[in-house]
Amino acid sequence: MSTLAGQLQKMEAHNSIFESAVRQLPLPVCAAFGAADGPQAVSFANSSRVLSTKDSDSVAKSFPNSVQASGNVVLSSAGANTKAAQGKRVAVLFSGGPASGGHNVVCGIKRVLGKGNTLFGVKPGPKGLLLGNLFEITDADVGNVINTGGFDFLGTDRTKIKSDDQFAQVKATCVKHNLDAIVVIGGDDSNTNAAVLAEFLFKGVKADGSGVQVIGVPKTIDGDLQIGDLLPISFGFDTATKIYSEMVGNILQDTRSSLKYWHFIKLMGRSASHVAIEVALQTKPAVTIISEEVAEKKQSLASIVEQIAQTVVLRSGKGMNHGVVLIPEGLIEFIPEMNTLIAELNDALAHDTAEFAALADDAKSAFVQGKLSADNARLLASLPDYVVRKLLADRDSHGNLQVSLIPTEQLLVDMVKARVKIIDAKVPFDAHCHFLGYEGRCGAPTLFDAAYTYNLGLTAGSLILDGRTGYMATITGLTSGGSPQAIPLTGLLNIERRHGQDEFVIEKALVKMDSPAMTYFVSRRADWSADDLFSSPGPRQLWGTSAYQQPISVALNSGSGSLAFKIG
Amino acid sequence: MSTLAGQLQKMEAHNSIFESAVRQLPLPVCAAFGAADGPQAVSFANSSRVLSTKDSDSVAKSFPNSVQASGNVVLSSAGANTKAAQGKRVAVLFSGGPASGGHNVVCGIKRVLGKGNTLFGVKPGPKGLLLGNLFEITDADVGNVINTGGFDFLGTDRTKIKSDDQFAQVKATCVKHNLDAIVVIGGDDSNTNAAVLAEFLFKGVKADGSGVQVIGVPKTIDGDLQIGDLLPISFGFDTATKIYSEMVGNILQDTRSSLKYWHFIKLMGRSASHVAIEVALQTKPAVTIISEEVAEKKQSLASIVEQIAQTVVLRSGKGMNHGVVLIPEGLIEFIPEMNTLIAELNDALAHDTAEFAALADDAKSAFVQGKLSADNARLLASLPDYVVRKLLADRDSHGNLQVSLIPTEQLLVDMVKARVKIIDAKVPFDAHCHFLGYEGRCGAPTLFDAAYTYNLGLTAGSLILDGRTGYMATITGLTSGGSPQAIPLTGLLNIERRHGQDEFVIEKALVKMDSPAMTYFVSRRADWSADDLFSSPGPRQLWGTSAYQQPISVALNSGSGSLAFKIG
Repeated sequence: MSTLAGQLQKMEAHNSIFESAVRQLPLPVCAAFGAADGPQAVSFANSSRVLSTKDSDSVAKSFPNSVQASGNVVLSSAGANTKAAQGKRVAVLFSGGPASGGHNVVCGIKRVLGKGNTLFGVKPGPKGLLLGNLFEITDADVGNVINTGGFDFLGTDRTKIKSDDQFAQVKATCVKHNLDAIVVIGGDDSNTNAAVLAEFLFKGVKADGSGVQVIGVPKTIDGDLQIGDLLPISFGFDTATKIYSEMVGNILQDTRSSLKYWHFIKLMGRSASHVAIEVALQTKPAVTIISEEVAEKKQSLASIVEQIAQTVVLRSGKGMNHGVVLIPEGLIEFIPEMNTLIAELNDALAHDTAEFAALADDAKSAFVQGKLSADNARLLASLPDYVVRKLLADRDSHGNLQVSLIPTEQLLVDMVKARVKIIDAKVPFDAHCHFLGYEGRCGAPTLFDAAYTYNLGLTAGSLILDGRTGYMATITGLTSGGSPQAIPLTGLLNIERRHGQDEFVIEKALVKMDSPAMTYFVSRRADWSADDLFSSPGPRQLWGTSAYQQPISVALNSGSGSLAFKIG
Repeated sequence: MSTLAGQLQKMEAHNSIFESAVRQLPLPVCAAFGAADGPQAVSFANSSRVLSTKDSDSVAKSFPNSVQASGNVVLSSAGANTKAAQGKRVAVLFSGGPASGGHNVVCGIKRVLGKGNTLFGVKPGPKGLLLGNLFEITDADVGNVINTGGFDFLGTDRTKIKSDDQFAQVKATCVKHNLDAIVVIGGDDSNTNAAVLAEFLFKGVKADGSGVQVIGVPKTIDGDLQIGDLLPISFGFDTATKIYSEMVGNILQDTRSSLKYWHFIKLMGRSASHVAIEVALQTKPAVTIISEEVAEKKQSLASIVEQIAQTVVLRSGKGMNHGVVLIPEGLIEFIPEMNTLIAELNDALAHDTAEFAALADDAKSAFVQGKLSADNARLLASLPDYVVRKLLADRDSHGNLQVSLIPTEQLLVDMVKARVKIIDAKVPFDAHCHFLGYEGRCGAPTLFDAAYTYNLGLTAGSLILDGRTGYMATITGLTSGGSPQAIPLTGLLNIERRHGQDEFVIEKALVKMDSPAMTYFVSRRADWSADDLFSSPGPRQLWGTSAYQQPISVALNSGSGSLAFKIG
């Protein structure tokens, strides 16, 4: 075997040159944790902030132990914890879609727990907790996964723990493994689940009557888990949007190089348009649709198409037969007429499920047409086959349409093409479609996400060693050194009617029309349409002067004076 | 306006933090050019290498001036050019699809021409040369575009200069702008065109009877322009494959995090599978199809499907219901039965074009069925509608099928799904499709491409100042400091029958079954199928220890002892 072949084989299984280099990258820690090479647990004390929602009274009734213990008061770090617990047995799990930085949360927890406590990994996700599938995480594991992307160290899944049976299984796992605490790394739903678990496990789990602590860590690439200055952004958003921004920037440069294509790019991010607005701020394309604005202005599908088609014609008149259109994944549901159609379809499909599933595609369409109102039947009939098929496809486990499967980008291309032809048949329009999603969830974390998540892990571990339960770890002041804090989960809960039942939920943060990020975007977008003013943010760097960047939308919304972040 | 808003607006139009930083990145130069901060032109002398092809005699008859001047001998640099020409007027253009590093070629030419000569940019591509659309490139332009991706500084197009009329237009442009030389930055076809232009413009262009020099520069992300150790790789390949490799690596990590998806990823790269094999070597996915191997083994579509389906079942048996399949863009044409079908379709569609175009989709299929042999009619009928539609779509200007439009990845997903169900209905198979292409052509160049292209530019400029014409610039010894050389274009030309006519072509380099890269890939792929041994090469870095990487396939094929490159 040649020397090189030998080297190459050693690079298998997560040992690329980059992965080996990035494991050595030092991570800063908030001053509260002491030295970066030996971070210490902090203790916590009540701050002066109390959280509440419109449903706080009902929440207090359903979560009596948690609310009584926390008073819904935000905790701030209060110096080194000289009386940190020892001998704790802690389990950590990922929940929901993966996001970059998850491994560093685990690493931070392990480091702060130190040799006096034991950390277990749960495989995979909440399902692993039900199955009791735990293993001990070692220092070697930390050295191996630190600064790498993905959730592949533990795996993840989307099991929602709600039934009595499931709660009993969780309790059995806690007892069997003699657990003292569980850390749930997840999004809004997973943190709601963490709140429910914290209450359920508050006491009476172990033989001595004590409970099991539950701490949440805020993850989601969608950016829809935000709580003002207490949680300017969840982890994973920065890495995902920087990956998408690089790709969009590359494609923008391609449009102006090749001079003949439009690219319609759908961006993952569920309902909210945080990802779309961040990528737009990074790259400045000709058109970016913001779902929340479409809903606010009650735009029809035809009016969105008109807006894009007019931009195509405008730019063509200036010699630019190229451009980029950004489309948020959840757009369809924010178009009022489409939302009405989908709601009626969801209702229609909730009954006669088996009968419907047995039908052929054509018959499905006919079957449904008969159950719709005249307006909706007309709208459905106006859509191309490939969209109708997706609208009638299987619902997810919650009975909802899987919006990400609808090829909104292709639908808009086809409709814009037809419209441009009517406005001015001489305008060339040749378009490509993209969906950027999975490639952004598991990339190596940006320096921002790497540092942020490591410190979130240190915070989560500190909360456990301080005996806390029912909190979500957070780091505030991300441009001024960073400060570990804890958000009482019950202070975030609202009641929402879902599938005919009242459910506790953490409200998804949508893009606000009056937010600084939206306001800035609105102030610039006409210029970006009229001329090629795009930028190419390039591949995220882990070394060098361009490595220290926070998301632009977060910087704007939090009133930062620059894009630089500063932890430690 | 807030401070930050002001900063953001200054970042528009190619002024992202990354773009501003990367402009300051110092580039190494081959020792032959002297100091990196003031590179000097080199002169050239004949080496001992003479190039020939099976058609060299015919080429000598058609390119008498070029062959007589060069003797088809490779040139090596021969020290600083103390008698470098002054007052030269040089035009540079991009030709064909964009590739990262093109801007640095222009920068290298401008730097080596210095103040004593003038460089013009041609907009866009060969079409700009016909139109005489030239502008003077300034030092400020160089400072602005250096190390940025794309061809957007000049634009590009795919016009092939072949008719007498077009040649006359080129001559008119040369006369009008009093040009002394033209640099064509392009792939195999563009460099063939450069050879033809060099011969045509050899003499008698200007009033004094002198000619216009033509120099080619080897570009293509496809990697199919390779000439052994004289040209181990064209520029743009490294950046494109590193971008694709990052995306594939991210998706691989997602598969092992989410634990439920297969991803079928088609990779741009035209006919050859160089891109696919490089990305496979970088990431180690479960399955990579190599088109050249499919052709060599005369595999049917069904046998490829069987191979993937068996891997799906094998991995499922080990608890892995996930994986990645890499598919080269040109695969369809390498499957013998599909190739036969496409050839017959191309013939059938070359006649009655207008009549055919006027038909509806269904009628098109029926129309063609009647013109096919029984075997091909059967094969066509067995393919899903969405593939048939693409097979019958408009041909390109050369009468060829636009292979990149065929959704091979979706076709394979659908066929594998059906096959897995037959082999073992209990095996879950849920798949997503991707096509990685446009996002890889215009990204910021890797350090390898940035340094390589800058030195290619220095070489091309030096060739002009040394009075040479009909050569392609190259840099050999990319791991030992780099050495400027020049390849006589006529030494590369073969005669191929295309569309019923003899044409001169530079043969496309395909993946060789006995190459070290293929051999190494074959030796490892069974292990990569059986277990998750993937690596994530991460975002390409411009700073830090992981920045100095050449392509793995190039390192293997050129017998390098490591992946590091060394220029200067």
